[in-house]
Amino acid sequence: MDTTNKRTFSVRAPQGTRDWFGKDIIIRDKIISSMVEVFKRHGAATIDTPIFELLNPMISGQDESPVCKLADQGGELTALRYSLRDSLTRWLALRGAQSAKIYQVGKEYRRIADGFGRSIAEEKIRCHLGVFGVSDGLLAEAEMLRVTMEVLDGLKLGAYSIKINHSLILKGVLEVCQVPEKLWRKLAKMINNISKTSWDQVYLEMTTDLELGKAIADKLGGYVAKTGGRHLVYDLLLDEELTKNVAFSKGINEMKNFSDLLEIFGVTPKIAFDLSLARPDFLSTALMYEVVTLPLSIKSSGKTIDSVEIASGASYYQWSGYLYKAAFPITGIEFELEDIFRIIKARVPAGQVWDTEVDAYVMAVGGSFLVERMQAEFLHKEMPEPTYRFAVVLSEEEVKQGKVKIKEASNPHKPGLDVDIDSVGLVLTEMIRGSKEGASDRKDAGTEEEGDEGGNFRERVDRVRVQGGTVEMEGVNVELDFAKIKVKDAEIELEGAKFDIKKVKIEIRGSKEE
Amino acid sequence: MDTTNKRTFSVRAPQGTRDWFGKDIIIRDKIISSMVEVFKRHGAATIDTPIFELLNPMISGQDESPVCKLADQGGELTALRYSLRDSLTRWLALRGAQSAKIYQVGKEYRRIADGFGRSIAEEKIRCHLGVFGVSDGLLAEAEMLRVTMEVLDGLKLGAYSIKINHSLILKGVLEVCQVPEKLWRKLAKMINNISKTSWDQVYLEMTTDLELGKAIADKLGGYVAKTGGRHLVYDLLLDEELTKNVAFSKGINEMKNFSDLLEIFGVTPKIAFDLSLARPDFLSTALMYEVVTLPLSIKSSGKTIDSVEIASGASYYQWSGYLYKAAFPITGIEFELEDIFRIIKARVPAGQVWDTEVDAYVMAVGGSFLVERMQAEFLHKEMPEPTYRFAVVLSEEEVKQGKVKIKEASNPHKPGLDVDIDSVGLVLTEMIRGSKEGASDRKDAGTEEEGDEGGNFRERVDRVRVQGGTVEMEGVNVELDFAKIKVKDAEIELEGAKFDIKKVKIEIRGSKEE
Repeated sequence: MDTTNKRTFSVRAPQGTRDWFGKDIIIRDKIISSMVEVFKRHGAATIDTPIFELLNPMISGQDESPVCKLADQGGELTALRYSLRDSLTRWLALRGAQSAKIYQVGKEYRRIADGFGRSIAEEKIRCHLGVFGVSDGLLAEAEMLRVTMEVLDGLKLGAYSIKINHSLILKGVLEVCQVPEKLWRKLAKMINNISKTSWDQVYLEMTTDLELGKAIADKLGGYVAKTGGRHLVYDLLLDEELTKNVAFSKGINEMKNFSDLLEIFGVTPKIAFDLSLARPDFLSTALMYEVVTLPLSIKSSGKTIDSVEIASGASYYQWSGYLYKAAFPITGIEFELEDIFRIIKARVPAGQVWDTEVDAYVMAVGGSFLVERMQAEFLHKEMPEPTYRFAVVLSEEEVKQGKVKIKEASNPHKPGLDVDIDSVGLVLTEMIRGSKEGASDRKDAGTEEEGDEGGNFRERVDRVRVQGGTVEMEGVNVELDFAKIKVKDAEIELEGAKFDIKKVKIEIRGSKEE
Repeated sequence: MDTTNKRTFSVRAPQGTRDWFGKDIIIRDKIISSMVEVFKRHGAATIDTPIFELLNPMISGQDESPVCKLADQGGELTALRYSLRDSLTRWLALRGAQSAKIYQVGKEYRRIADGFGRSIAEEKIRCHLGVFGVSDGLLAEAEMLRVTMEVLDGLKLGAYSIKINHSLILKGVLEVCQVPEKLWRKLAKMINNISKTSWDQVYLEMTTDLELGKAIADKLGGYVAKTGGRHLVYDLLLDEELTKNVAFSKGINEMKNFSDLLEIFGVTPKIAFDLSLARPDFLSTALMYEVVTLPLSIKSSGKTIDSVEIASGASYYQWSGYLYKAAFPITGIEFELEDIFRIIKARVPAGQVWDTEVDAYVMAVGGSFLVERMQAEFLHKEMPEPTYRFAVVLSEEEVKQGKVKIKEASNPHKPGLDVDIDSVGLVLTEMIRGSKEGASDRKDAGTEEEGDEGGNFRERVDRVRVQGGTVEMEGVNVELDFAKIKVKDAEIELEGAKFDIKKVKIEIRGSKEE
């Protein structure tokens, strides 16, 4: 960047970041509030930690994505928040908490390389839920998956699967297959890619990159291909070679009890016990889980959304950094908000989400000086995107005849509808309802899989915006305040500036002057 | 920081930052949602910009608080977001927007020096509202102050004053007093401190630090001491020496029209036209405004809250950085969320805000293995802070007798209240209502000034949390799900896991088994 010429600088967001605005931020924030509602229902509280933390050499995962350091301008050495979970554990350690259930929606920062080998500080918004404290018999983990199910069902983003595995089961399998321990970490990462690439690809990597013996790889392949529901636990309990292994035996018994818990919590239909689910840090964890969406085709747009990993987590017995001396494990799940956003955005029909949450906009045309100014300000100027659906236009001549005009914001060149001033509330209500049903009709034309989903995004705050100002007209006097429209003697009460259009009461008292 | 020993690192938030949690974040987020509601009502949309921006040499204000740079780890040179307004103007320039009304709640970062001369990256959460586009006759500014009034009245944080001044009025006064132009910037900063320190102090600074002539300082003092309502505009219009000045004359006439607009918008009672309101960058602005709270005494705590500047803004005709070539001004106001938070927190009685929004918690004791686990998890372990008000305890023996026990979470050693299972909903409703009225009774003991304010923070979501699990008991079978309690044949329907306690319908159908 040239800093010598004051006029030479790039007008854009830095690489690795994005601005959120318009429909995107409305959809994103609805996703967040839907999630948060579930967390609160389960008694979780929230925290908001600083965007940077003291540099901590014990934060894990940095071998792949280093932290984004702040420049040393004197003072403490810090780096942008690497992970919400690590900031949570720092907070827990600082507070000396023994137990807590905490969620945080926030951004995480990691240095990644772009295609040209340049370093980019990547900003990702994520949502983390952590339960800290003694979890007796994986109860916290079961509730975590219950919460996950409620979150995802609430978002109505289509079919998904919660993959689970136990680190002791993975350890047992690796031991039984006689995989050298020094390869475990790298192998775990490869195994976990089976569902994302293919067994053949992973087999090639294992036998060439890691130089794993083919007999071992074949045997391992037989195990990690196993995936299924609760029955798989019982099938594996019959495998004598496995059950003789101490780690496996402990793991499969915990998994059996866990399956019972999941049944009680009603999560079983969403669960896939998957032996290929593995994490490089699996030795620090007990239960591991990962949520993937199933491929979804959207008929209205003809697009297909591939399977995406939208959440993952584990119960950690040793967590990097601040939890090194913690007596209790932390059970956490992290939702990939941006991936969830992309799926939901693809399913929301165009025109259904509005930049601002205003249904109708009342404006006055003609008359006094002020009104002309308002007109210049609000009416004639073309907004980049309309921020309301309907405009109620009060003009001097029409109001004298007891009429107002209702215009569609999305269709400014279409002539407005002339309506009796007495029935503007009723007509407007109908038009708003009609426009919403229209939107949902279009929506319903989607695939069966979409079904009655996406309903969250059809809900809207019904508000009428009344813009301040005054219209002075011969014989008729319209005062616009944020709360009231008075038509001399006749009074239209809008019950304050915000109200539910379904309940709008427009009373016309007295009569218009002749 | 010692990075050689992995166990040696500080477990705390960096200097200049804080964690938000517990009651603080609940109060903070209620303040934010109250503000946002007003912004939306006025048709504002929101954006969320990255936490860092490309390094931009044209961001103003950096002479006092430099930007917080990210380390150069390869790639682009960036710095933490210096100001929400600057990020907004960058976004506007990028989008090529001609007009927009945008709010953003977010954090800003500036390097400040602590008492020991060390550099601290300060993190402050603020809320910015900006209107971009042609503002005919200060209409956008008037609406901005209307919005400000609605925001502050909605927050019920006590009496406040919106100070306004026009840069051309200030320029005219400086010219009439024959203050050398090179001193304007520094002088503006000193003048602005009159209300925060004293005239004597400022006089001393002006005549010694700036070596301003005493005659000039005296004359200036006569003008900048002037503050008042709308009448001050008319008083000043009678000052012939001032009105002969071109800048002053233009400024005072704009101020006169602006006063009319404020009258129409109903903001006049909150306005103080104050000639000491000045900004170092006043030559780039037209209208300037600043909101200060009046001192407030809280009887319940005996504390006094001093006058605080809680918001400030201006209409900028030249804004640093990205707006250098903008055709239109930006009118912005920035709310100091942390100062507003401190005032409101001081006014919320202890015990009134809860960490999580759960009123009652249903748990089962006795019976199966699982229940004992739940008991261990949820009942016997002392939580650092209770996250619910009442616990409904179902124990095997009691349920057989058709009884349940209701315990107060805040008073775990107090014996529970035995209640007929048929009337648990009714009794619980009464108890929750009682506990809230108790809280509001304590609240009402405040000063008169507090009056019926703070009402926002008395509102609570009434929710009952039903924890999953099963109680198997001889003769009676209680299944706890997140949504239902079934007492074999008798069914208590809780209408899903979240519902309004006022509407709770508990139906007991059939009869208990003998």
